[in-house]
Amino acid sequence: MEEMVVANRKIPRATARRLPVYYRYLNVLLNANKKRVSSTELSKAVQVDSATIRRDFSYFGELGKRGYGYDVENLLKFFRGILNQDKLTSVALVGVGSLGSALMNYNFHQNTNLRISAAFDPKKELANTIKSGIPVYPADELVEQIKDQQIDIVILTVPASQAQKVTDQLISAGVHGILNFSPVRLSVPKDVQVQNIDMTNELQTLTYFIESNRLNAKDEQEK
Amino acid sequence: MEEMVVANRKIPRATARRLPVYYRYLNVLLNANKKRVSSTELSKAVQVDSATIRRDFSYFGELGKRGYGYDVENLLKFFRGILNQDKLTSVALVGVGSLGSALMNYNFHQNTNLRISAAFDPKKELANTIKSGIPVYPADELVEQIKDQQIDIVILTVPASQAQKVTDQLISAGVHGILNFSPVRLSVPKDVQVQNIDMTNELQTLTYFIESNRLNAKDEQEK
Repeated sequence: MEEMVVANRKIPRATARRLPVYYRYLNVLLNANKKRVSSTELSKAVQVDSATIRRDFSYFGELGKRGYGYDVENLLKFFRGILNQDKLTSVALVGVGSLGSALMNYNFHQNTNLRISAAFDPKKELANTIKSGIPVYPADELVEQIKDQQIDIVILTVPASQAQKVTDQLISAGVHGILNFSPVRLSVPKDVQVQNIDMTNELQTLTYFIESNRLNAKDEQEK
Repeated sequence: MEEMVVANRKIPRATARRLPVYYRYLNVLLNANKKRVSSTELSKAVQVDSATIRRDFSYFGELGKRGYGYDVENLLKFFRGILNQDKLTSVALVGVGSLGSALMNYNFHQNTNLRISAAFDPKKELANTIKSGIPVYPADELVEQIKDQQIDIVILTVPASQAQKVTDQLISAGVHGILNFSPVRLSVPKDVQVQNIDMTNELQTLTYFIESNRLNAKDEQEK
């Protein structure tokens, strides 16, 4: 029941994006037989300041005790629940170009119940082959296979020109989450989640932060 | 002067990450000879709700007029300034494995002054070759080349075991921004910015949102 209440609570997207990071480090601690961890230790290991950690955790109620820190096993159990790590999550990858191929070789972290179970591409020479251990299906079997395999999450690595068309097919097949590597801003219904990974945007954001830091530093000096 | 004041202002990271998206769409509008745009139109095109757009823009002062919307050319000029798009930004890529190679083929969006000008890898057969139009230097020339070329931003696609070691070298060479594709949480000084792109985390975050949406929907039905 507790997970339900928790999952119902609206948490900021930035907090949600840090949950897997916490989860991963807690696994490291468990494997090292650590029983408890302070927010300062946690902060150092995951490179998130401890005020942010405490605020993130506060969305989920009282997870730690003042002066004691956090109980590793309890915390891990909690995160495993909210990240749905108790069952295997099969994802599909659509678009086996150079980026798609690279991602098919990707090693998911340990203790992660994620698996790419199918890939799709329109190229004739790829159809019905096994690549990096993953079956590649022809593009015209997309909807059927996604439905059959009950796949909920898709990694999208198709060219920009194809992105929206493929997205519409994925939604008609019942997909609820898209990790979008194409530069297109996808239009999706409200119950479908999109995470955009766009290298141009990421680099421009970095440029912005660097420039802004530099001007702040200059400003400090002039004070 | 205005850009300085603006860049000095602390804005949320989530806002900063949306700036390149706004910038890109404004270029599309300019090329289509559009003179002004409403926050509703902008919202539809970039798939960000209009309240968020208005809040994002409010960090930068009054950019639009009630009932008129935003002036495309002014807004574009403003974003070009804060994103530092008036000069060419050269970035380096470190680690020419399958992901690194895929990213070297990456087409940055149009109207983006970004360019990968150097790559680095320890593999002997890659050293001193040109790959996808980009020179690949041996790893032991990393610090020297980064300094010589005054590179400020690096795309890091090395194996986890090498990530921190290479990061330390990059920082000693004067790098201020790292787009980190390795699963390691890098330890860096305060004046260095890191953007992490970690597929495991992204997929786990998606899983979390989907599960949370599903429980919310169920909750609504039961009301």
